[in-house]
Amino acid sequence: MLLNGQPANAISLQDRGLAYGDGLFESILVRNHRPVFLTEHLQRLQRGCLRLALVYDAAAVQQELATVLAMPAAANCVLKLMLTRCAGGRGYRAGTDECNRLISLHPLPDYADSQPEQGIAMFVCQQRLARQPTLAGLKHLNRLEQVLASREWPDASFHEGLMLDTAGLVIEGTRSNVFVVQAGRLQTPPLHQCGVDGVLRQVLLQHFGNTVSQTELRLEQLQQAAEIFVCNSVFGVWPVTGLLTAEQRWHYPLGDYARAAQRCFHEALQ
Amino acid sequence: MLLNGQPANAISLQDRGLAYGDGLFESILVRNHRPVFLTEHLQRLQRGCLRLALVYDAAAVQQELATVLAMPAAANCVLKLMLTRCAGGRGYRAGTDECNRLISLHPLPDYADSQPEQGIAMFVCQQRLARQPTLAGLKHLNRLEQVLASREWPDASFHEGLMLDTAGLVIEGTRSNVFVVQAGRLQTPPLHQCGVDGVLRQVLLQHFGNTVSQTELRLEQLQQAAEIFVCNSVFGVWPVTGLLTAEQRWHYPLGDYARAAQRCFHEALQ
Repeated sequence: MLLNGQPANAISLQDRGLAYGDGLFESILVRNHRPVFLTEHLQRLQRGCLRLALVYDAAAVQQELATVLAMPAAANCVLKLMLTRCAGGRGYRAGTDECNRLISLHPLPDYADSQPEQGIAMFVCQQRLARQPTLAGLKHLNRLEQVLASREWPDASFHEGLMLDTAGLVIEGTRSNVFVVQAGRLQTPPLHQCGVDGVLRQVLLQHFGNTVSQTELRLEQLQQAAEIFVCNSVFGVWPVTGLLTAEQRWHYPLGDYARAAQRCFHEALQ
Repeated sequence: MLLNGQPANAISLQDRGLAYGDGLFESILVRNHRPVFLTEHLQRLQRGCLRLALVYDAAAVQQELATVLAMPAAANCVLKLMLTRCAGGRGYRAGTDECNRLISLHPLPDYADSQPEQGIAMFVCQQRLARQPTLAGLKHLNRLEQVLASREWPDASFHEGLMLDTAGLVIEGTRSNVFVVQAGRLQTPPLHQCGVDGVLRQVLLQHFGNTVSQTELRLEQLQQAAEIFVCNSVFGVWPVTGLLTAEQRWHYPLGDYARAAQRCFHEALQ
């Protein structure tokens, strides 16, 4: 792990990332020492910096990424890049615009081939997402809603949880975005009020172009869906074949859109 | 600083407090080695633990507090007690119910006598609080809204910022609770949807008993207020003599309720 370019495994107890979640992160898939979707990850990071009034040394990050990616442990892994606001004293107001840079490598999650191939069961979480336009779309360090939602499903037969916002709209998975084929069209929820605007979500919006729309969806509408899939830039695309709601379990076929999204992801890996 | 009872000044880069803001904290005023409102702080911490499904070793915390409070640096200071969920792997779901315990000492903030005596100017922040009943009232580590709001006021002539929620209701200061004398009654906003339920707020609710009510307040209603004050358990009670809104500046007298609240706070310090 590198902290501002120096090997480290710990950070000050005074860090504002720890104290307030005052920072941003990106989890980047690395294949054969190559960071997948790096441009898109850095673009989202930059959007987050603008929103939070953070400035980071982009040249230093590029150099530190090159150093880390050359390591043997970086052949195939997840690279986590985190920025936390530098302290300028104590208290909410005391931070500067400057950032600490943290880069760490993590083993690839232990995902089976069966999830992309055969699909997953998804649990509808009780925990809602608050509507906060200022923070919507960003991958910031305030993630208690996802933590609480992730603890809801009972066992490993579920691979993801679906989250609604406090207005009852379907938004995303706890660590993924959701696409739904409904009324003959590919749709994904808009993320102006809450949710993380995933890198693979953006790639798929580009890929599908006019055939996909950003549309508000309620849970009831998912009962009629022809197809559902979730995506993130590390695991790719998982078809959703079962959705467990408070009242019942809905089933979905593996569909053509999920397969097309998987092909798009696999092409990016090459 | 103590981390799980051992001297430390750093925490693992893998800590879930840093990664997700997955934890709670209390900032406790210490006078003559005595933690003020300790019972109330620990009660709020316990409410937070119930909500977040965290369990901490209360006996260890008591012992560590006794150790730290006996130190010369703990004569008059702010003691920060933080709990972060122990990691059980990587990802939102991988945490356990167990906590890391962090205790640190900080110098008393450099507050002048003039703020309680002569009152403060308060800035009405643009940054809103999201409505999230699950997290409302808690002092958790997801504090980006407060960080962003605290950066809004232009200079040190303001000592606090007033925050509204996304529905336009007055909720709190960035680091304090707010009381308003309006229509002849002492009122403070309810905190079911958002806001931090301050220790001194609870003490004052008890102190004023039937003469105070928890009432929804809109910004416009503050123009007619006879008196406004903010409070927290470290700085006590500050009368608000000026409130800067987007359009104009409203002025308020120093009032009897603020003085009564100050007496209540000072009695607790004895």
